[in-house]
Amino acid sequence: MAPTYKLYYFDVAGRGEIIRYLLAYGNQSFEDIRIPKEEWPEYKKKTPYGQLPVLEVDGKPVAQSLAIARFLAKKFNLVGQNEWEALKCDELVDTLGDLGQKGMRYFREADPEKKETLKKQLFEEDVPYYLSKFEAVVSKNGGYTVGSQLTWSDFQFAGTLEEFEKRHPGLLKPYPALSGLVEKICNLPSIKAYREKSAQKK
Amino acid sequence: MAPTYKLYYFDVAGRGEIIRYLLAYGNQSFEDIRIPKEEWPEYKKKTPYGQLPVLEVDGKPVAQSLAIARFLAKKFNLVGQNEWEALKCDELVDTLGDLGQKGMRYFREADPEKKETLKKQLFEEDVPYYLSKFEAVVSKNGGYTVGSQLTWSDFQFAGTLEEFEKRHPGLLKPYPALSGLVEKICNLPSIKAYREKSAQKK
Repeated sequence: MAPTYKLYYFDVAGRGEIIRYLLAYGNQSFEDIRIPKEEWPEYKKKTPYGQLPVLEVDGKPVAQSLAIARFLAKKFNLVGQNEWEALKCDELVDTLGDLGQKGMRYFREADPEKKETLKKQLFEEDVPYYLSKFEAVVSKNGGYTVGSQLTWSDFQFAGTLEEFEKRHPGLLKPYPALSGLVEKICNLPSIKAYREKSAQKK
Repeated sequence: MAPTYKLYYFDVAGRGEIIRYLLAYGNQSFEDIRIPKEEWPEYKKKTPYGQLPVLEVDGKPVAQSLAIARFLAKKFNLVGQNEWEALKCDELVDTLGDLGQKGMRYFREADPEKKETLKKQLFEEDVPYYLSKFEAVVSKNGGYTVGSQLTWSDFQFAGTLEEFEKRHPGLLKPYPALSGLVEKICNLPSIKAYREKSAQKK
């Protein structure tokens, strides 16, 4: 019997979207359980480590967005064509995560003076540093983050960069290869269908 | 011809130790290049993303400690007995990383008042929360973080928990299974030999 999948996350894209994208791409039916904020304290106690997303596979729960994404990526042949490419996927996803963390540090800073310093560092140094490196990689690979075909890294980049652009419109403008990657992933028929269905629920 | 490995990192354990442990365990010879602090600004420009560790495999560089560790773990049969166990390794390593990040947030905080708040949260809530969960997992698995045999997750836990204990002596005392895991890894013949050689260099 085919395994059953239940994804528990909040009603946002965030760290759950890569999992939803991969399940949609793999044409794998799943329960997309979106926990309302007010029910979270009760759910939290039942999670493996106090966090979401959690994926249940045949009733067995597992945490950590990227761990889950990598697991699904293997199932759907999205981990590159060899072990070196699988490594490159992991390298890029974790490096993007480093940039995301710098963004979160700025986002969470309450002290206005420190926030201003972090903002300067983020938008004048970190963002151009990382995005120009990613741009060069994707440009060299003819539109892919790794190798010459689709990997889960592309999904993670598309989802994350789209969020960056939503929060800071124009951020991706100087990076045509990265913008093109976001567009390419969003226009995959399976992802397009998932996004339309997901938007209708709102 | 067998591939050649060069590891670039600083002269500390940190994020490089898991890679050194795995290469030692796999009996894989490698150049253990430790960059002196004063040479780092020059080296930094040559790294893929401005950070160490970087592993060079036959001259091709790759960044990100955990990505590299997972790549080596596959080579040395340390990723569990099936895809679910490989997933569980990733889940545990990333969850330990979450705890490590909370530790770093406390460690880096300059404001004494905020540091005190973070300290309380870290040592009275986060550390007991995570370590008691990890303790239960390792205890249930008869001394392993995943399944019933050695994985790269065990190396990451041993290295990280040993660092925690060094910084905060007594931290692991309430957790006999975790303490036992650290001891077990340190006493593997290959790891013991690497540690002795490494200590002699100092």
